Amino acid sequence: MSFRCAACTLFRRRCQQDCIFAPYFPPTEPDKFELLHRYFGARNVAKILQEVEDNQRAQAIETMYFEARSRVEDPVLGCYRIIAQLRKQIRETEAEIEKTHAAIAFYAHQPHQRNHF
Amino acid sequence: MSFRCAACTLFRRRCQQDCIFAPYFPPTEPDKFELLHRYFGARNVAKILQEVEDNQRAQAIETMYFEARSRVEDPVLGCYRIIAQLRKQIRETEAEIEKTHAAIAFYAHQPHQRNHF
Repeated sequence: MSFRCAACTLFRRRCQQDCIFAPYFPPTEPDKFELLHRYFGARNVAKILQEVEDNQRAQAIETMYFEARSRVEDPVLGCYRIIAQLRKQIRETEAEIEKTHAAIAFYAHQPHQRNHF
Repeated sequence: MSFRCAACTLFRRRCQQDCIFAPYFPPTEPDKFELLHRYFGARNVAKILQEVEDNQRAQAIETMYFEARSRVEDPVLGCYRIIAQLRKQIRETEAEIEKTHAAIAFYAHQPHQRNHF
């Protein structure tokens, strides 16, 4: 029996030697291609693959898969939710740093209250 | 002349009263729909819209548009690039905070060297 990648299995077609999907979608993981096909359409996935160098294609697939899964988890925000959360975390951390700097400056100018520091 | 949204303009069809795209794609901004159609396919955009509440659809479109633009800017990483950058920034900031805490602890235990603080 000849090899057939997850994409060609889904489309019930022969998997050609030069199949653009074959290296990234083994038949053992049908869900991955299925989700990408549902979110982007197989043609759009192929278009992105063609736009990037061979050695970056696996990474392009991973990030597209990441986007698709994030949209399943949150149909409104998709992976933007993660970006918003990280930005919030950075804002909070920056506020904490500012408070720490203010506290340091305060204690640095209170020589007699050193023990409270 | 009747109203025709950017999607129906692109597809050269009449824009029906209940057109799912009309509220979000005015004909004055054809590029936005065009990019979304290119990245996801119009059908997939409509599918996402149908999945979310009316009052969240504008936000769903914005985040999909954000994803599509990010992929244009970086065909390999897409908007994951931003997530990776933000995570790096958080790691660096956390390292800085740790150093600051270490410095504070150091000076707090060096009563005679207060002026160096």
